[in-house]
Amino acid sequence: MKKKVIIVGAGFGGLTAAKQFDASTFEVTVVDKTNHHLFQPLLYQVATSVLSPGDIAIPIRSILSGYKNVNVIMREVTGVDISNRRVLLSDRELDYDYLILAPGSRHSYLGNDHWEKKAPGLKILADALRIRERILQCLENAEASLDQVEKLKNLTFVIVGGGPTGVEMAGAIAEMAKKDLIRDFRNIQPSETKVILLEGQSRVLSAFSERLSSEALKELEKMGVDVRLKTNVEDISEAGVKTSTGMIETSTIVWAAGNKVAEVIDKIDCEKDRAGRVKVNQDLSIEGYKEVFIIGDAAFFKDRRYGVLPGIAPVAMQQGKFAAKQIANDIEKIPREEFRYFDKGSMATIGRAKAVANIWGMEFSGFFAWILWSFVHVMFLIGFRNRIRVMAEWIWYYLTFKHGIRIITKRK
Amino acid sequence: MKKKVIIVGAGFGGLTAAKQFDASTFEVTVVDKTNHHLFQPLLYQVATSVLSPGDIAIPIRSILSGYKNVNVIMREVTGVDISNRRVLLSDRELDYDYLILAPGSRHSYLGNDHWEKKAPGLKILADALRIRERILQCLENAEASLDQVEKLKNLTFVIVGGGPTGVEMAGAIAEMAKKDLIRDFRNIQPSETKVILLEGQSRVLSAFSERLSSEALKELEKMGVDVRLKTNVEDISEAGVKTSTGMIETSTIVWAAGNKVAEVIDKIDCEKDRAGRVKVNQDLSIEGYKEVFIIGDAAFFKDRRYGVLPGIAPVAMQQGKFAAKQIANDIEKIPREEFRYFDKGSMATIGRAKAVANIWGMEFSGFFAWILWSFVHVMFLIGFRNRIRVMAEWIWYYLTFKHGIRIITKRK
Repeated sequence: MKKKVIIVGAGFGGLTAAKQFDASTFEVTVVDKTNHHLFQPLLYQVATSVLSPGDIAIPIRSILSGYKNVNVIMREVTGVDISNRRVLLSDRELDYDYLILAPGSRHSYLGNDHWEKKAPGLKILADALRIRERILQCLENAEASLDQVEKLKNLTFVIVGGGPTGVEMAGAIAEMAKKDLIRDFRNIQPSETKVILLEGQSRVLSAFSERLSSEALKELEKMGVDVRLKTNVEDISEAGVKTSTGMIETSTIVWAAGNKVAEVIDKIDCEKDRAGRVKVNQDLSIEGYKEVFIIGDAAFFKDRRYGVLPGIAPVAMQQGKFAAKQIANDIEKIPREEFRYFDKGSMATIGRAKAVANIWGMEFSGFFAWILWSFVHVMFLIGFRNRIRVMAEWIWYYLTFKHGIRIITKRK
Repeated sequence: MKKKVIIVGAGFGGLTAAKQFDASTFEVTVVDKTNHHLFQPLLYQVATSVLSPGDIAIPIRSILSGYKNVNVIMREVTGVDISNRRVLLSDRELDYDYLILAPGSRHSYLGNDHWEKKAPGLKILADALRIRERILQCLENAEASLDQVEKLKNLTFVIVGGGPTGVEMAGAIAEMAKKDLIRDFRNIQPSETKVILLEGQSRVLSAFSERLSSEALKELEKMGVDVRLKTNVEDISEAGVKTSTGMIETSTIVWAAGNKVAEVIDKIDCEKDRAGRVKVNQDLSIEGYKEVFIIGDAAFFKDRRYGVLPGIAPVAMQQGKFAAKQIANDIEKIPREEFRYFDKGSMATIGRAKAVANIWGMEFSGFFAWILWSFVHVMFLIGFRNRIRVMAEWIWYYLTFKHGIRIITKRK
């Protein structure tokens, strides 16, 4: 009788785990509320009209079609009954012998959930398309504007949060709205367009070294981004953003400021951190239930060497592989191991051909870092076809400065 | 003082016209309610996950950025005051010396507008994305279904209308849902999937010759499409489609059955046909107002040789060029000419590598016709980049059978 494994979430963690299970021993079910795996690191490029959704999303079924022991079901998980080893969906229950929860994270508005409407985050494709549409619509409004105040409001773009996502968005919007697109608009001057990045701490990319932080800041400012450090958001309304240093009138606010765990984890009763992440054991299982693993952004894990691990793709992927191995080891009666993260480095891109990167302890910045960044991201994209598409888009973008995917589809 | 030309609509007709005007003599304003020009003939491929929106849409500003005397404004036209030579937008009025109306057509539900909700048409990108999402969602529902009746309802796809659009959609959906995607689904058999094409007349592609009609019918049936001729739609509801020969339970209905003129034309008081198209003079101007031209799908024109011209791209493009020429001739005091259509032929594709085509009186079908069709369509796509993208997508699709753009983004 095969062992039943349920994996909730087909992001980096869940997908890596799903591919690890021997077909003769395990029957795996992957549950995801969407039909596709999303390469989130490039989502900001969909939001800024460089890439199409199809470039960075691939159907989960496609990826797993060769794994005959893996079933995929597109459903939202409504609950987890860990006492009885069942996952609850809207229309049925699924039993399991082992459960891997990899549902990811959502944006946190620090208690002000009503801000979400005016200040969308960037987690899923719908977010990116919504932001793309907003930016393009604002440019169209500004072009046709008969009122100078309204025009400038439309040409002010605010990004909240100076981590990698915020820095990448700010750089990309600056490129789009201050340089590349201006050529096509007759009534907009680059100087009228303002891109403002708000960060509460004293530097951007605070998870990187001080040196790379200041390289990134320099690049952003060179691109015309107004970086406001030690500036917090106090309120968000129809008028714009109220910060600790004053009011900014804007029609476009992108939220990249904080994460909290996916909703399904709220339903599980165990020790958590302030962001709702579950404090897992050294083998990534939860306390009292060795058959339940939590990995990726939803897990709070203290690595012996690196401390609390961040919610990034390489962590999720390594944890996915590790959790699957613990399950396989159980069958062989091999004792559980301790998860050890292998930090290959981190990177963030700033605008068209610059980035900062830290690989195996070596720091890079500028054009070479961007080449590295591009290479790594393309290699980690799933699917030969997606790699070719993204590379082709980048080559085009780099050579022509043209943002190719500037479409307002106005879906209701 | 330059002459002011307003062009309403940036489809094939409006765009072709916009590029004709000499910069020293004319100041042109293009008004469109979207920000992009859409290559409609390939819309059905977005609906069936072969192409992305970005492959067939290009921002109007991009196309016209080199034409310094052309301004683009993204607005909906709320009215046309032909007595006073003004076009009314939501927030302003624009005067003109000459007006070219090229707003295209909408779907006609033969008086049953409430059918639109259940049976969307295929005119704009949002339509195609909506249909794509519906098809993919139905396949996911069927895969997870616990109820055989509900499963079969999800696996039944109905297309209404046997013209080129309907035939192309039916063939493409058959390929998608009966062949290509089935590999990725474990619980769906190709035989459970039904693709039904409803046509009220006695043959499909009634605008083509009888021979090409029957070639198309053969191909469709070979692909597993259930073609029901002389079958009309009596009602559309949540349950499905009620036809003159019985009830079909289905979750997906695509409407490709009839056109009526764009809404803005309803506001103009002049002689029209049953579909609301304006009966224009031989020089494409409207009766009594020589400075107002109507072209493309919105115009009813009786060609000396071909009779009433159909609403297809080559007609719109030739009329756009012609109308612009009449305006330029006015300045030179050259008398108005009579529009003569030059019919280069027509084509429709059926499935992956078959088509029917009539070029300069010669008929082709099968694989060669499909090559011709592909060539013509790629050549008429605007923009080098779009041509490369679409060709690359087709090569991939043809070689791998894989529908690459299977994304459900769930935009509200």
